[in-house]
Amino acid sequence: MIPGKFITLEGIDGAGKSTQLTWIVELLQRAGLQTVVTREPGGTALGEQLRALLLDKTMTMHAETETLLMFAARREHLDKVIIPALSQGQWVISDRFADASFAYQGGGRGLNVDKLSILEHWVQGELQPDLTLYFDVPVEVGMQRVSQIKNVDRFEKEQADFFQRVRAAYLDRARQFPDRIKIIDSSQSLAEVKAAVEQTLKDVLNHG
Amino acid sequence: MIPGKFITLEGIDGAGKSTQLTWIVELLQRAGLQTVVTREPGGTALGEQLRALLLDKTMTMHAETETLLMFAARREHLDKVIIPALSQGQWVISDRFADASFAYQGGGRGLNVDKLSILEHWVQGELQPDLTLYFDVPVEVGMQRVSQIKNVDRFEKEQADFFQRVRAAYLDRARQFPDRIKIIDSSQSLAEVKAAVEQTLKDVLNHG
Repeated sequence: MIPGKFITLEGIDGAGKSTQLTWIVELLQRAGLQTVVTREPGGTALGEQLRALLLDKTMTMHAETETLLMFAARREHLDKVIIPALSQGQWVISDRFADASFAYQGGGRGLNVDKLSILEHWVQGELQPDLTLYFDVPVEVGMQRVSQIKNVDRFEKEQADFFQRVRAAYLDRARQFPDRIKIIDSSQSLAEVKAAVEQTLKDVLNHG
Repeated sequence: MIPGKFITLEGIDGAGKSTQLTWIVELLQRAGLQTVVTREPGGTALGEQLRALLLDKTMTMHAETETLLMFAARREHLDKVIIPALSQGQWVISDRFADASFAYQGGGRGLNVDKLSILEHWVQGELQPDLTLYFDVPVEVGMQRVSQIKNVDRFEKEQADFFQRVRAAYLDRARQFPDRIKIIDSSQSLAEVKAAVEQTLKDVLNHG
């Protein structure tokens, strides 16, 4: 069995990941590939319970606690969903993965990158996504889109400077892993973003 | 302010920790010390929610997920309860702490000790209990006491060989840290165990 590929979507809230996720699944299915769509934090029964704790805006927790919970949910996600699907030849598309921990807990909360790398290796070993699409938008654009949501969660309720740090950390990470992480300019029109996604995926489908 | 001391109680289920905890608090209060009684997993609002997930016998999870959740709850416990209390000069008595991860996730579930040490250091830095009382009983004795509980949890429902490994790991850990971890023979009569606890605590109160 040819193993499937692991694609992750990253970006601040309001970057348009959800819309593009639907488009990516459409493109992969047109290519005759089996897809599994999942998300972080979450993706498993336990992970979704952890997601509820992590996003609960009445909850307070230390940034390191938040990080450990994110990686706990990730460990379960790998074991129950991602690794089994890949080994069955399915393509896994996850709305966020470990880069989000570097962006949100690292950039946003200020957690030391070395501490994050220790947990990343503890949980994933050498496993990394085959492709990460980072949807980049100016913070004002993302926040304006999120402002239309009535019930913002514990992350969405953060202020602009928080998301500036998250975005900067995502861009740092993309510069550090240019082969894996592709930056999509998500401030373009929907049609332009879709075209950019399609082009990036074609490269992977043809050369992966 | 003279910092308080951090005392942890360890042992397999049915080792009599809860009974002795009451006795320890009594002894410390007689000595005019302020005490904070807490437990793991748990001890904070978030930690108690994680405890419910960890003990839920209908829940399945990877041993590494379980370990990350235990240390997540511990991180929060340190931040919200243990460190603030110690810095205010209070004595903290916790029903289980990190040695339990080495015993249950290490010995019981077979997780690599080096991986546990990495998380221990990640979460605690150099912080260790000032004194750990390990209540040692033969597994049959502990299991017989637990068998009288109607609703056993996800750990209590394990079989004898699991608890044999947990006990062996506790004893290994006690041999590794003989200055910190004191073994109390909990198969003795209640009066004898109480006397042993009192003697051990006196040594710490007088020389600590």
